[in-house]
Amino acid sequence: MRLALLGVGLIGGSIGLAARARGMAQVVGYDPDPSALAEALRLGAIEEAASSVSEAVAQADVVFVAAPVGAVQETIEAALAAAGPACAVSDVGSTKRAIVEAIADERFVGGHPLAGAETAGVEHARADLFEDAVWYLTPHGGAPGAADRVGALISALGAQPVRIATDAHDRLMARVSHLPHVLANVLVAGAVRALEREQGDLGDRLPAWAPSFRDATRVAGANTQVWVDIYLSNSEALVCAIDEAIEQLCEVRSALQTQDAGALRAWNDRAREQREQALDAASVENR
Amino acid sequence: MRLALLGVGLIGGSIGLAARARGMAQVVGYDPDPSALAEALRLGAIEEAASSVSEAVAQADVVFVAAPVGAVQETIEAALAAAGPACAVSDVGSTKRAIVEAIADERFVGGHPLAGAETAGVEHARADLFEDAVWYLTPHGGAPGAADRVGALISALGAQPVRIATDAHDRLMARVSHLPHVLANVLVAGAVRALEREQGDLGDRLPAWAPSFRDATRVAGANTQVWVDIYLSNSEALVCAIDEAIEQLCEVRSALQTQDAGALRAWNDRAREQREQALDAASVENR
Repeated sequence: MRLALLGVGLIGGSIGLAARARGMAQVVGYDPDPSALAEALRLGAIEEAASSVSEAVAQADVVFVAAPVGAVQETIEAALAAAGPACAVSDVGSTKRAIVEAIADERFVGGHPLAGAETAGVEHARADLFEDAVWYLTPHGGAPGAADRVGALISALGAQPVRIATDAHDRLMARVSHLPHVLANVLVAGAVRALEREQGDLGDRLPAWAPSFRDATRVAGANTQVWVDIYLSNSEALVCAIDEAIEQLCEVRSALQTQDAGALRAWNDRAREQREQALDAASVENR
Repeated sequence: MRLALLGVGLIGGSIGLAARARGMAQVVGYDPDPSALAEALRLGAIEEAASSVSEAVAQADVVFVAAPVGAVQETIEAALAAAGPACAVSDVGSTKRAIVEAIADERFVGGHPLAGAETAGVEHARADLFEDAVWYLTPHGGAPGAADRVGALISALGAQPVRIATDAHDRLMARVSHLPHVLANVLVAGAVRALEREQGDLGDRLPAWAPSFRDATRVAGANTQVWVDIYLSNSEALVCAIDEAIEQLCEVRSALQTQDAGALRAWNDRAREQREQALDAASVENR
């Protein structure tokens, strides 16, 4: 089995390390950045550095496109143009509808591993990055061949392939990933504004953060290039998620203003049940 | 030095363990729940179990009231009624204005350690719970005696006493603790709603959560009895924080709808700076 990685950053590099550590495939890589490519070779994430997309893809059985969002579509198209008829091509982008609608080729299957959002670069790549991680696949059209091949490879890498419709994927991601990032930004902005406002009272003694704040803002201001592309490519679903959040905040606000302890208790108890429901749901996946 | 703990749950018990581990004080405890009191004695959090507030407080140099929010005011009042003229009385509640306004006695100083919000009960008490933690004190009136004595004791327990005005404390807590809790509830509710909506697409394959979601919702549905009291006692500041959050969400929403990449980039870059500013501020405290 011959595996081609187009883009050898954190995700591409980790796919290579995982595949090689398990002796699953011969791994060839290409990256427009020659120093990233050389580093991937040095770290053993790939065993062969190609000098072009077509050179990397020739003879490959499976191709993963792990390029920056802005370059994903053209890289997939270049890969499909160079790949053989039995080759499967997948990507690792965080939103799926735009790319899946743009690529009409049954050798392509959209993918999205839930792993490694915070660091970048092959120097952070790890052979165990996908261990037990959910890896969404959004097969479209009628041909299951590419999805089956990519799914089998993902399982062999230690991750769990989960098939999902593209729209459902993007709407769920809006709630479980994109909205948390938006709210992290909102929290730091509000806290810094309040901090500046209270400066007179605090003097040079600035407040420490509660653990809940530290956790909720861990992803604030995450990689702008990556995240602004994600927000824009999923703007419709994200706007809906924001609207629902505002609606809920208005309900809480009204209960606070009327000192409605019963409503707040019911709301908080429900959140505890919902959190358990969410964790149970996730644990089904993570078995 | 004789230290009285009124309420020997997680916080009271941890104060006792820390004081005894450092050989700082003779520690007496009282709790209306006899089994909690017996357990605190067994675990060594206290060395003497009193049968009433006044018995515990008699001869004490410093008293910490670590009772459930609903019982804090009456317990402080009972402690002050029984305490000698040189005794200092403090509490550990998460909001300060209501209690500080209710207690007009210069032996009292409001306190709030930033530690241990998630578990409860003396069985989770730890001698190092306050190690390097910020511990807010909100002295009011003109008498520094009580605040000095409590501050020295807090330092000796390994925490960092930070004096702050009551209103400033409550406004900051609204942003760095109470709003993150509200948003955690909002996130789980939105995610569960979306999950139910997509059930048709997902079948029995439920989605795993992104790490950002797991972190941001860790405190969702936290102890209802504790948190509804906190929300209600700080409703004014929390409503302001919610209003600012809604305002920011509307700005993001509008940038998403107009696909304004420049505005989103500037907003996200600003969030990264604000997060660094916030962490720098905290690290000043945590030195």
